[in-house]
Amino acid sequence: MAGIVLLTSLDAAAEERWCGLLQDALPEETIVAGARFAPTGVAAGDVDVAIVANPQPVALAPFTNLRFVQSLWAGVEKLVGLPTLRRDVPLARLVDPAMSRAMAEAVTAHVLALHRDHARFARGQRDRVWSKDPQKLAHQRTVGFLGLGELAGASIELLTPLGFDLRGWSRSPKTIAGVATFHGDDGLATMLGEVEILVNLLPLTPTTERMLGRPLFQRLPRGAMVVNVARGAHVVDAELLAALDEGQLAEAVLDVFEVEPLPTDHPFWAHPRVQLFPHVAAQTDPVTASRIAAANVRAFRAGRPVANVVDRSRGY
Amino acid sequence: MAGIVLLTSLDAAAEERWCGLLQDALPEETIVAGARFAPTGVAAGDVDVAIVANPQPVALAPFTNLRFVQSLWAGVEKLVGLPTLRRDVPLARLVDPAMSRAMAEAVTAHVLALHRDHARFARGQRDRVWSKDPQKLAHQRTVGFLGLGELAGASIELLTPLGFDLRGWSRSPKTIAGVATFHGDDGLATMLGEVEILVNLLPLTPTTERMLGRPLFQRLPRGAMVVNVARGAHVVDAELLAALDEGQLAEAVLDVFEVEPLPTDHPFWAHPRVQLFPHVAAQTDPVTASRIAAANVRAFRAGRPVANVVDRSRGY
Repeated sequence: MAGIVLLTSLDAAAEERWCGLLQDALPEETIVAGARFAPTGVAAGDVDVAIVANPQPVALAPFTNLRFVQSLWAGVEKLVGLPTLRRDVPLARLVDPAMSRAMAEAVTAHVLALHRDHARFARGQRDRVWSKDPQKLAHQRTVGFLGLGELAGASIELLTPLGFDLRGWSRSPKTIAGVATFHGDDGLATMLGEVEILVNLLPLTPTTERMLGRPLFQRLPRGAMVVNVARGAHVVDAELLAALDEGQLAEAVLDVFEVEPLPTDHPFWAHPRVQLFPHVAAQTDPVTASRIAAANVRAFRAGRPVANVVDRSRGY
Repeated sequence: MAGIVLLTSLDAAAEERWCGLLQDALPEETIVAGARFAPTGVAAGDVDVAIVANPQPVALAPFTNLRFVQSLWAGVEKLVGLPTLRRDVPLARLVDPAMSRAMAEAVTAHVLALHRDHARFARGQRDRVWSKDPQKLAHQRTVGFLGLGELAGASIELLTPLGFDLRGWSRSPKTIAGVATFHGDDGLATMLGEVEILVNLLPLTPTTERMLGRPLFQRLPRGAMVVNVARGAHVVDAELLAALDEGQLAEAVLDVFEVEPLPTDHPFWAHPRVQLFPHVAAQTDPVTASRIAAANVRAFRAGRPVANVVDRSRGY
């Protein structure tokens, strides 16, 4: 007998909703949510597939016969190192075209708002100051990406027709039409020196954690602007605030934070040069996401290749 | 003998700069700025071309032998009805591709910022509230244009690849690929009923003046958002404020005002649902604009057709 368990850190109502959507998408399967596990009569040893959304590590422990794990989130940094998740069990992250599109729209909105000085004009409005400077056109503005995965690719696709001068950096060499690409440490230093608006879309790994700190900010031209839509732990908060206060950075747009919701006493809330968003760049749509997870489970059952399996050594 | 006079309402330094740029672009001509007119020895009757930027009406009076007038601004509503400007003298407005591009970038930035609720999240940040709702994608968002001229066309060109559901209204029928177009009074009512983000790019004429008032706002769906990047006189300020306060409109982005700079006691400055910009959507670039004006003067001199001649009966 084979079964599927759903393990999340969501509240009961949200987990219930996901469970219903997944069951609808996989009527041939028995799907049991972790919270409701005991009363079903399905033995833990009979469960061979787990669908997960940041589960408590201990919640995974009883399922010793897993052969496939599908995450409902795109970011899997909290799953990769779990001792309760065997490294030889394939782990897939969720890649939803609707989410990529949402992220691309968010990034494009942030880049254009920075390009057109929306935050500066908002401060002018608050102070009732009527003041303007000459305005650059998009082709005179350099936008650089940290990370060139799925989400950066979707963002670049929307920014290209707007005419921005696009750059991108990734761990390993990549080629993208219309984008000057860089890789490795030297490539990073070269790219940063020319970037006016920096967009972080890196995966979170031990290598990329705290990467947006003072040394990186110092390599940017003075007055550069930073957008973080990846993970809060990419940023060293105190060093970002210092770079803003020193004028090395002109503006920061932050959608993600190490602790979410961001504690109300965090200095980001009131900083005049921080625009804060409550992790909304690319919200998961349970309807589309459950269908995508279901299709991957069905591929696994049929012995076909599953999509977006995480490389445990890279961490994404 | 033929000469060119430059007549503006700019300050002396700005007028001087324009005069130098125009003279550089037309070395074969004698160009004299209005303020410096008397000492040059060129008689007013010998001047056959005026290059103008919102001149004082009386400043035009001495030039009775004008055969061509080139405006340095795109909007000519202050020139069209001047009794000092004979209606049989061709009047050209300035159409600068760099300005159209700047306008298109401004409109795209405003539409995306409204689409992604930037103003609402800014209010959330001020109140330290972490709160999110499901996010629409661009293809689920209806954007409507009032006016389908040069500037709307350039804006539509940038918004199309982003996937918005685009609509547009103009006085006379127009066809634009990928845009549902409407015209006339019935067409206006139909379009407004479906528009979530309304962008005003109409020319200012007696017909379009005060068009953005209560009757128009009432035809929009409740919670619609309005962007005015055309002229301040298109808007009935008190009725816009009332529509925002009643919740009929959710947000207004205003770049232009009947009196500019906007007086510091105007209620727009402090309204929480007004985003105010100091007339920066498409700033004139004197370098590119003087070249375009010069090319039109040269066409006039050579007896070739001049570009962008205003239809005095339409007013633009």
